[in-house]
Amino acid sequence: MIGFIGLGLMGSRMARNLLEIGHELIVHNRTKEKAAPLLEAGAKWANSPKEAAEQADVLFTMLAHPKAVEAAAFGENGFLHHLSPEKLWVDCSTVDPSFTRQMAEEARKRGIRFLDAPVSGSVIPAEKGELVFFVGGDPKDLKKVEPMLNAMGKAIHYQGENGKGTAMKLVVNLMLAHSMAAFAEAVTLGEALGLETETVVNTLLNGPTAAPFLNGKREKILQRQFATEFPLAYMQKDLQLIAQAAYEHHISLPLTNVAKEIYGLASQNGWAQEDFSAIYSFLSTKKNNRLSP
Amino acid sequence: MIGFIGLGLMGSRMARNLLEIGHELIVHNRTKEKAAPLLEAGAKWANSPKEAAEQADVLFTMLAHPKAVEAAAFGENGFLHHLSPEKLWVDCSTVDPSFTRQMAEEARKRGIRFLDAPVSGSVIPAEKGELVFFVGGDPKDLKKVEPMLNAMGKAIHYQGENGKGTAMKLVVNLMLAHSMAAFAEAVTLGEALGLETETVVNTLLNGPTAAPFLNGKREKILQRQFATEFPLAYMQKDLQLIAQAAYEHHISLPLTNVAKEIYGLASQNGWAQEDFSAIYSFLSTKKNNRLSP
Amino acid sequence: MIGFIGLGLMGSRMARNLLEIGHELIVHNRTKEKAAPLLEAGAKWANSPKEAAEQADVLFTMLAHPKAVEAAAFGENGFLHHLSPEKLWVDCSTVDPSFTRQMAEEARKRGIRFLDAPVSGSVIPAEKGELVFFVGGDPKDLKKVEPMLNAMGKAIHYQGENGKGTAMKLVVNLMLAHSMAAFAEAVTLGEALGLETETVVNTLLNGPTAAPFLNGKREKILQRQFATEFPLAYMQKDLQLIAQAAYEHHISLPLTNVAKEIYGLASQNGWAQEDFSAIYSFLSTKKNNRLSP
Amino acid sequence: MIGFIGLGLMGSRMARNLLEIGHELIVHNRTKEKAAPLLEAGAKWANSPKEAAEQADVLFTMLAHPKAVEAAAFGENGFLHHLSPEKLWVDCSTVDPSFTRQMAEEARKRGIRFLDAPVSGSVIPAEKGELVFFVGGDPKDLKKVEPMLNAMGKAIHYQGENGKGTAMKLVVNLMLAHSMAAFAEAVTLGEALGLETETVVNTLLNGPTAAPFLNGKREKILQRQFATEFPLAYMQKDLQLIAQAAYEHHISLPLTNVAKEIYGLASQNGWAQEDFSAIYSFLSTKKNNRLSP
Repeated sequence: MIGFIGLGLMGSRMARNLLEIGHELIVHNRTKEKAAPLLEAGAKWANSPKEAAEQADVLFTMLAHPKAVEAAAFGENGFLHHLSPEKLWVDCSTVDPSFTRQMAEEARKRGIRFLDAPVSGSVIPAEKGELVFFVGGDPKDLKKVEPMLNAMGKAIHYQGENGKGTAMKLVVNLMLAHSMAAFAEAVTLGEALGLETETVVNTLLNGPTAAPFLNGKREKILQRQFATEFPLAYMQKDLQLIAQAAYEHHISLPLTNVAKEIYGLASQNGWAQEDFSAIYSFLSTKKNNRLSP
Repeated sequence: MIGFIGLGLMGSRMARNLLEIGHELIVHNRTKEKAAPLLEAGAKWANSPKEAAEQADVLFTMLAHPKAVEAAAFGENGFLHHLSPEKLWVDCSTVDPSFTRQMAEEARKRGIRFLDAPVSGSVIPAEKGELVFFVGGDPKDLKKVEPMLNAMGKAIHYQGENGKGTAMKLVVNLMLAHSMAAFAEAVTLGEALGLETETVVNTLLNGPTAAPFLNGKREKILQRQFATEFPLAYMQKDLQLIAQAAYEHHISLPLTNVAKEIYGLASQNGWAQEDFSAIYSFLSTKKNNRLSP
Repeated sequence: MIGFIGLGLMGSRMARNLLEIGHELIVHNRTKEKAAPLLEAGAKWANSPKEAAEQADVLFTMLAHPKAVEAAAFGENGFLHHLSPEKLWVDCSTVDPSFTRQMAEEARKRGIRFLDAPVSGSVIPAEKGELVFFVGGDPKDLKKVEPMLNAMGKAIHYQGENGKGTAMKLVVNLMLAHSMAAFAEAVTLGEALGLETETVVNTLLNGPTAAPFLNGKREKILQRQFATEFPLAYMQKDLQLIAQAAYEHHISLPLTNVAKEIYGLASQNGWAQEDFSAIYSFLSTKKNNRLSP
Repeated sequence: MIGFIGLGLMGSRMARNLLEIGHELIVHNRTKEKAAPLLEAGAKWANSPKEAAEQADVLFTMLAHPKAVEAAAFGENGFLHHLSPEKLWVDCSTVDPSFTRQMAEEARKRGIRFLDAPVSGSVIPAEKGELVFFVGGDPKDLKKVEPMLNAMGKAIHYQGENGKGTAMKLVVNLMLAHSMAAFAEAVTLGEALGLETETVVNTLLNGPTAAPFLNGKREKILQRQFATEFPLAYMQKDLQLIAQAAYEHHISLPLTNVAKEIYGLASQNGWAQEDFSAIYSFLSTKKNNRLSP
């Protein structure tokens, strides 16, 4: 039996793909209603993380931030005390490497196996089983869950010991945050200089300076509609994890820290729950900003 | 006869490609020695911009910044007063749109035709005739020089009236500056978190978050050797043009302005003349930065 | 006769103080209505900068930015061609040092004397004659206008040759912009951490970390009313002058450039015409910025 | 008996002032050698935090960061399990408010009284007993230690319940970090524009835009000697605490985050252990940063 905790935008789609390749699945989420489609499709409901842990051989977690993982693992009816030795916990949440190493240690102390396997990709890749996994931990444990990861993703990048999957995921999200924000500034500049939005967007997307994933944001920019694939507030959260990790490892990331604050300002101005490409909308806001003569 | 003023890293290679498709060419540069290979290959030498203008039907300029263009056009023995009406000036320099429009107006007053045709691409594409042109001006004028541009480049993006070629070029360079700096921060983060530089670089370059041109910077990063294709100080200069244009058009580009200053700090710390990918070297500098206990 | 061009928030009050110490005054402004109170009080009206120049022995300019100075000096009916040799032009506008040196050179070529004498202080000090002047140029020229400057200000800091008055003024405004923005961030932080706005403001203002001028912003912050003393858009403009000057002189000012962009974002969000302390209002904006669970 | 844990630059001087007003004092530090002058002056040595706790009625901690406090409190031979109920722990360390509230809760669970009482001021005020305390907690507890705080400081600002002392301290340090960095940029700008360093420094310090504490940095700037009063790396650490607290409370501090990274770059370039005013030295670095023509 596979356990799955965390049925948000991403988790619900990942769990669905596990179900579809024929696994028995027991799921838990903070609010039960999000589990409804999965339950209809045959998944079992666990009233708590503990209940999921008691029945699962492999337990996936896909939660919003380190504190949510901590709560599910150690909180009231948390799962960690209820996973028997040799069972495997796979954390797909985006957290920071020192948190991951801490979780790995907590698992190890109890004889529990642990993989960090955060994913790259948003709602649609999650739905299509086209996520990318960055994995840290023991290769034997990875071997065991490979078929499951393959059901949810199209690529698995093994990075080394526990924490390194998480590390690479942060690196990837740094790139994601920047590329999106840079594109937003570029389009805003083009418009201000009198170019057509569509011309700018197309010229950039067809050239060598735009990251390929930006093609997926083309329509959002052109329509100024930011249906959420990856919420802006989550991007801000990941940038905070990155900033914290950078500080702890004695490096400076000036652009990343500014990006963090600009996503933050966008968030404060009402875009937290929209797709993170809404940074464009925040930056291209133009209320009356001239002085009368 | 084609005139060509400005034989730097880029200009010398562009002129060479014009020569190779059989054009008669007269060239001028502030320091004559840079013209030597072209003169050997059959180009004529002009002692001043004026002399080039007197003999050329189409005059290309490829200069480092607006002030250099201004000096060549209006300075002592400048070319603008010596181009006869109906001749065509094609400015390939990266300048700002308001400067371009001012040059277009100066040309127009004298009956001279004018195109802004800045290029994207660095030394190697320049050498191979694989630059990309962004063109503003009258389509009939573009028609006339299309074969020449095709000798130097692989693509021509017509953008509209004068100034819009320059505008798009600034947009592209904004993307270039950011993508490089973001990649530098990403690799620095990955290293700090314990990942192998090569793993980080390869994982990013094979994924959807890295701009394709970054493949061309792979070896520089891995070898920490920054042989100049596009000097860091020129990138800083372009960012200054962008910041100025943004201010004049009432928009804010917070990330771009920070990128400008970080390239500036790299410059102050000795990287001005290296390739702009040396931003990585600046950001990943690690002198002793810990307090003793 | 003293000429005075530029009767904005500051200029009108400065001119009034000149009138009050008994000088004959001829004034010009782009829109005549702003001159009304001065004309009633006895000033003469000049229909153009030229007219003011023809009658004045000393001509003050107090304009919004370099382009406005350029227009008044060289535009249609500009004053520079109509100042006779040995007359004295005193530019109190905040511009950049290279512009100042260019103006000084234009004056010199015509035998006209020139001082750069930008001011520190806003509406109320202007009204009370308590401005601070930073002066560049020939000390003999300063001698001549000292009584006039003393009518408008409480202190005169002579800095050296032309351009150095302007330079010091930019340095001072850099401090002004930062101190205000830092105070805005500090108060915002304090509030977010649960402290009373008034406690935070008072503790800071009574301690050694707050610039003394911030006392004058206390009520604006506490009332969240930003009656304009120095418009936010002017601060943004000065920061742009500073950024340009910094680039030209090969230094990096990362914080100043970010401050510029944050004032810019505040401007875009509707605060351009308010006092620059309204940066607090922009930064402390809090629309719904949380993700639902 | 008073206990004192943490005898760094600040703590050693604070403890000395307690000793001098006649208190019996038991001290502990990670490295014993720093305690030598105090032991000579009559203080007792505790081999561990535990030993200090067992003998003290009031226990002060003055440590470098939250992790150091955590280690002293909960680590091997930590003090918290060895303070009897009703004893009072006063934490003078600069930490973040959520950490403080967590410590307060840990103390409360054990019946131990707790005050957060971080200080403003550096080595010299610490020596002279002229620190400023920001205090959070029960006023009755403050009453009890008031004479001790008065021995070490010249002012006590009571802020409210536990966590609010810490909160105000972060607000003050935000101002400190900015004012210093702004001053560094201002002086660098003035120098680049041709002004004398001393003129710029004096003009600013005598005007309303410079925070009063900057007078204490005057000589360091002019001599370019940065004898440590408050180490740059500590400022960077405090900015990291601030950034974290800001994120947790849903506000954006763009300037503060950039300041954090610029101190970080200064740190990476070798200035970590110098006084934080060495940010000036980093920003005004000028290696060859021009392109040859």
